[in-house]
Amino acid sequence: MARTNIPEVEAILDKEFKCLNAGFVRLIDYMGGDESIVQAARVSYGKGTKTVNQDRGLIRYLMRHSHTTPFEMVELKFHCKIPIFVARQWIRHRTANVNEYSGRYSIMKDEFYVPTDEAIHFQSGTNRQGRSDEEVPQALRAKVLQLLLADQHQAYGHYEEMLGADIARELARVNLPVSLYTEWYWKIDLHNLFHFLRLRIDPHAQYEIRVYGEAMAEITKKVAPMAWEAFEDYVLKGERFSRLELEILREQLDTNSITKESLEARGFGGREAEEFLEKIAKLKSGGE
Amino acid sequence: MARTNIPEVEAILDKEFKCLNAGFVRLIDYMGGDESIVQAARVSYGKGTKTVNQDRGLIRYLMRHSHTTPFEMVELKFHCKIPIFVARQWIRHRTANVNEYSGRYSIMKDEFYVPTDEAIHFQSGTNRQGRSDEEVPQALRAKVLQLLLADQHQAYGHYEEMLGADIARELARVNLPVSLYTEWYWKIDLHNLFHFLRLRIDPHAQYEIRVYGEAMAEITKKVAPMAWEAFEDYVLKGERFSRLELEILREQLDTNSITKESLEARGFGGREAEEFLEKIAKLKSGGE
Amino acid sequence: MARTNIPEVEAILDKEFKCLNAGFVRLIDYMGGDESIVQAARVSYGKGTKTVNQDRGLIRYLMRHSHTTPFEMVELKFHCKIPIFVARQWIRHRTANVNEYSGRYSIMKDEFYVPTDEAIHFQSGTNRQGRSDEEVPQALRAKVLQLLLADQHQAYGHYEEMLGADIARELARVNLPVSLYTEWYWKIDLHNLFHFLRLRIDPHAQYEIRVYGEAMAEITKKVAPMAWEAFEDYVLKGERFSRLELEILREQLDTNSITKESLEARGFGGREAEEFLEKIAKLKSGGE
Amino acid sequence: MARTNIPEVEAILDKEFKCLNAGFVRLIDYMGGDESIVQAARVSYGKGTKTVNQDRGLIRYLMRHSHTTPFEMVELKFHCKIPIFVARQWIRHRTANVNEYSGRYSIMKDEFYVPTDEAIHFQSGTNRQGRSDEEVPQALRAKVLQLLLADQHQAYGHYEEMLGADIARELARVNLPVSLYTEWYWKIDLHNLFHFLRLRIDPHAQYEIRVYGEAMAEITKKVAPMAWEAFEDYVLKGERFSRLELEILREQLDTNSITKESLEARGFGGREAEEFLEKIAKLKSGGE
Repeated sequence: MARTNIPEVEAILDKEFKCLNAGFVRLIDYMGGDESIVQAARVSYGKGTKTVNQDRGLIRYLMRHSHTTPFEMVELKFHCKIPIFVARQWIRHRTANVNEYSGRYSIMKDEFYVPTDEAIHFQSGTNRQGRSDEEVPQALRAKVLQLLLADQHQAYGHYEEMLGADIARELARVNLPVSLYTEWYWKIDLHNLFHFLRLRIDPHAQYEIRVYGEAMAEITKKVAPMAWEAFEDYVLKGERFSRLELEILREQLDTNSITKESLEARGFGGREAEEFLEKIAKLKSGGE
Repeated sequence: MARTNIPEVEAILDKEFKCLNAGFVRLIDYMGGDESIVQAARVSYGKGTKTVNQDRGLIRYLMRHSHTTPFEMVELKFHCKIPIFVARQWIRHRTANVNEYSGRYSIMKDEFYVPTDEAIHFQSGTNRQGRSDEEVPQALRAKVLQLLLADQHQAYGHYEEMLGADIARELARVNLPVSLYTEWYWKIDLHNLFHFLRLRIDPHAQYEIRVYGEAMAEITKKVAPMAWEAFEDYVLKGERFSRLELEILREQLDTNSITKESLEARGFGGREAEEFLEKIAKLKSGGE
Repeated sequence: MARTNIPEVEAILDKEFKCLNAGFVRLIDYMGGDESIVQAARVSYGKGTKTVNQDRGLIRYLMRHSHTTPFEMVELKFHCKIPIFVARQWIRHRTANVNEYSGRYSIMKDEFYVPTDEAIHFQSGTNRQGRSDEEVPQALRAKVLQLLLADQHQAYGHYEEMLGADIARELARVNLPVSLYTEWYWKIDLHNLFHFLRLRIDPHAQYEIRVYGEAMAEITKKVAPMAWEAFEDYVLKGERFSRLELEILREQLDTNSITKESLEARGFGGREAEEFLEKIAKLKSGGE
Repeated sequence: MARTNIPEVEAILDKEFKCLNAGFVRLIDYMGGDESIVQAARVSYGKGTKTVNQDRGLIRYLMRHSHTTPFEMVELKFHCKIPIFVARQWIRHRTANVNEYSGRYSIMKDEFYVPTDEAIHFQSGTNRQGRSDEEVPQALRAKVLQLLLADQHQAYGHYEEMLGADIARELARVNLPVSLYTEWYWKIDLHNLFHFLRLRIDPHAQYEIRVYGEAMAEITKKVAPMAWEAFEDYVLKGERFSRLELEILREQLDTNSITKESLEARGFGGREAEEFLEKIAKLKSGGE
């Protein structure tokens, strides 16, 4: 098998997906795609190539059952330009490779995150780490922007002043704010990227990193469209219920009305329908 | 804060939990427990100590929302004696530390896994990697045992014969079967141990590793009882539903009958009840 | 074996080792020490306990031959208070566990890194990421300090102003500088801690992280004194030579004068002396 | 920049490099090469592309100073067929991705490791985990081979007999010996591959894994020839000396005779020569 070149990906390779006021994310290299997930899974099963339809079924099976290692066989490498406070959340995902622009070695550029008017929100009253939906008066928004811009301008001016006096770069930069943009190359396998995206395109993630997550989701869809579809169906648009919650579901579900035929008519694959019926039966029997 | 010594754990420290015919698992050291999970989470929230009840609520919140890093602050170190084929499944969990007995350096002992009569099963007809429930006739069981025992005896005899002729240990051992017992020290953090246990006490795991998983579950419960309870309620006894499955649930659920009061009466915590109502509302609105 | 409690460590447990103007590092928990390194190594060799002297020899052997896994059996958990720019270098060490104070959730405190007079240096002319030894005139030092303090004061004032107007915490903090202090719990195994320390107490590391590295080195010595001694002898105070460099050494070394006896007289252990003689012989023969 | 296709690599892609009597390793995909190491390093330094000669110098600088992250930007994916006892050593390298043929799911093939006559050795008298160089008499070699072949044949026969009686595959395989061949896909980044190779092509590694290491070294050279050369010069053919050993070197070295010019005449790069002179000066001054 020659190396996979996926036309939809080649078309966007190196293309900047703009994020926030001055950031971007772009795919600069990749290895594998749906095909290599299937290839890796089949070594386990001792099987050769199959039809496209069987490939899709296999990928969905792997995702449904959390057989994650075949997804690790796909790699994506991104070039990202991000504010430091976003970089600090991002880097917590440890199973990835990073090379970042160094403020010890090089001069940081005069580029800062400035929120749009719409991104300025009050503190949420119910979620201690979120933003409220209540509209912020225009005057207050203007005030916030003015404070941010003025301080960024002044911090960068003082940074330049210290560099001008030949103060060490690694010291001169200590008062630059976390709104400053940095850049890095970031490489990750598809399994760990899905994990990153699940957390970072979630409504609870901070808006500024979500923007990057959504851009990367668009790119990821092109690299492995079947895997993405499965990830959406089973993870992103799925839901987990606890033991106590399942008790409520048990009481309310009229399981007699659910048959394999009715499920298949609604789009369930054959094996998927069987697994749902097993899940329901287990639920009805009290989880034993 | 002095180091945590949990009396229930001290009582079982070093104790062998027998597994299979000649194996065991024993806890030989640990660091932290429920208390250190709470301590680590509170550094994020900038908060100090609280009541036991609030600790339990916090641990359950962390588990419910997959805030996994505080669980990584607890470590358990086990000494395990396991057949090689079990070791080969086990070692696939990479986020752990291992020191294994070396057959290059030392002489392997004459100890092999021999299944009990009850553990001998036919191949499952429906699950390509499972065992059937159908009973195996006694004569066939006896035959299987006889084959296993005879070959183990012969392989070990030839191993000894080669050692006796001073053939290099690393070579003499190449025909020892994967039923041979090996030993290792294995250290893992609680988050990754939960992940291991979720996969290895699952009915789809091979029986022989499940036995070890269950012994380790008993030990883990003692090290972090609140975390274990949350793990059971939200993960082990919970269930994940896909996009398509949620559509079925949506049609059948009579959500008007579910109120915060009725949930609390059934044992839901206050915040847990609110979160379930949000989940249900989201479900009813079609997942938007 | 009961859990190890090392008196020298108990004496400093929880104690703040002050770093920079307002930071600290303190050990809050640990698991194992020299004894558990030896214990883990001996499972590989199928051997039981030995004398202290043999333990020391074994630990040195493991370090000398990069047998790193037994060192992974020791864990240290630290509570650290560090400027954000230090945290950003620190977090690049991925094989560790972290829980950090969250500026999304909580209000950041008014504490910033301010260098001492002695820490203010010019840019190095020869090392693009270092500081020069040339003295900075007092007037310029004063100017730098004044700029840093004034901007920190202003940035915090504006942060408070935005919080006062109920702007979301996660947004209000975006202009806080990387000199702001943050806190975290950080847990790591001894092998990876040695790797961290090797890089971070090196003269090429930035002064501000080196201060933390040195404090942690003091602590680590107490947890595993024999391992520390071996780490110093073979790594910190050792040196690596390249193929080309070895050619120079080969020409100059009068190897006839080096004997096992002369080496032992200088403090080499028996096996260590033999290994050095082998190294020298290999060198003389041109590396074959 | 389009994706890198390296002609020398394309020429060997998918090609089986035979190892032992029935094994192989083949490269089935890769991402990046020397070029992407340089690209990743330059994002740190904020620099663009350079000449080939500068690229080589940069790669050597990175290797010399253990700046390992740019090497992590290259990925290699192998398909390997290996005896189980080799797989067990191999899998200890945790920073890699693996999908292995499953004996629970599929029927293991009748293929076993059989050593050549030359690979049969006595136990080393000096190295507890090695082989002696002393020749094994032909009659004993023949005896060893006969034992191995007979037991392999019998074990596989009994495996087939149990499968024929429909005993579960996961159970029937427990007496297959560790000389049985298995297969896997194994993906790793270049930094971690270098680490693997350093340990596994070392004379202390077991012969049977060294054969694979050497085949992979051939492949790796083609993917990143400059990085390989640096790895050889600074790691494989370099040497580390301890504190005590350096004292010996200090006494014997006539450092006056070593000048930058003389070093450059012998092939040292300019910066490399300066660094060696610094190393020597530090040595002479007693390591301070």
